[in-house]
Amino acid sequence: MSLDDRRAEIITSAAELFDRMGYSNTTMDDIGRTVGIAKPTLYHYFSGKDQILASIHEEFIDLLLEKNERRQQAGLAPEQRLLEVMVDIMELMETHRGHVRVFFEHHRELPEADQPAMRDKRDRYEAAVAHAIKQGTADGTFRDTDPRLAALALFGMCNWAYQWYQASGPLRPREIAYQFWDIFVRGIAAHPRGQTAG
Amino acid sequence: MSLDDRRAEIITSAAELFDRMGYSNTTMDDIGRTVGIAKPTLYHYFSGKDQILASIHEEFIDLLLEKNERRQQAGLAPEQRLLEVMVDIMELMETHRGHVRVFFEHHRELPEADQPAMRDKRDRYEAAVAHAIKQGTADGTFRDTDPRLAALALFGMCNWAYQWYQASGPLRPREIAYQFWDIFVRGIAAHPRGQTAG
Repeated sequence: MSLDDRRAEIITSAAELFDRMGYSNTTMDDIGRTVGIAKPTLYHYFSGKDQILASIHEEFIDLLLEKNERRQQAGLAPEQRLLEVMVDIMELMETHRGHVRVFFEHHRELPEADQPAMRDKRDRYEAAVAHAIKQGTADGTFRDTDPRLAALALFGMCNWAYQWYQASGPLRPREIAYQFWDIFVRGIAAHPRGQTAG
Repeated sequence: MSLDDRRAEIITSAAELFDRMGYSNTTMDDIGRTVGIAKPTLYHYFSGKDQILASIHEEFIDLLLEKNERRQQAGLAPEQRLLEVMVDIMELMETHRGHVRVFFEHHRELPEADQPAMRDKRDRYEAAVAHAIKQGTADGTFRDTDPRLAALALFGMCNWAYQWYQASGPLRPREIAYQFWDIFVRGIAAHPRGQTAG
């Protein structure tokens, strides 16, 4: 197993432990035991629990940013871009279960040194969504709203799912995202939309 | 100061401490010191930290349920009831800052014995909102949606504000609630609505 693979494995296991047991209640011992490596080896990869926390955050937001930036080059319409963002977030509820709670509930525990870069990335992602809304208003698709507030409404709908989403539920992440998107884009539409779901 | 007043004071101070320092990092000592009472006296009111946590939860959800139930007798239209729910939640971001994070992030730490009653109250509140949506569909105001999913979208928009709402921001809770409501009810409207904001 390469160094990078091992690092990734530690991050994933730690995210699951933090999610299940709580960040404060999880020790480096617990993490080492779960991954099956001795504590000195664990410290070879990460100088402490907060470094693992920082890596979970970075992995999570980088994933969202990359998906979004790759898409920007595809020239999708604003409406379509919003749907893809909502799908991305909802799918993380399933693929990165452990990361999600940690990302939302433990950003204040990040090492001081990592906070500005992380805030910067979060802001960048939020701004990309607000920008898509602004573009949609400019091209006449959306009515005139406060784009930041509308973006926060969109994030709220999707992010909040970490509180209730269950992989065993009847709807897949993409289906939920689609229904939320349908509410959202009708909600900010400049002109009434045809019945697309229901 | 009456017993009840003292209890209320402990709950409020503890909620603020939990919010600022994290639930796991706050001790009964910290709480006693902040309220200005000795630890034995504190234990006279609460058998432990998790009992205070339970009281914070109870106070929070009871407040929402009471406001909502009082309103049900007023015979408001479903649309109007949804607005009032959204206002209630947004206003708690300002009036019960400390309670909010604790309520959303620490329900898993509640004493086992308190969990069923608390889950019951949360479910009751969620069901009341889903019911208003269902009624709106029945009376032709709203289109046919999955009422539970639509309720979760509404809660997401509002509840998520605990992550970003700042009392020093330009908009008051009621103004934010109104803009979110406008997105939401247009989003589930059966017929296009006139431009009411923007």
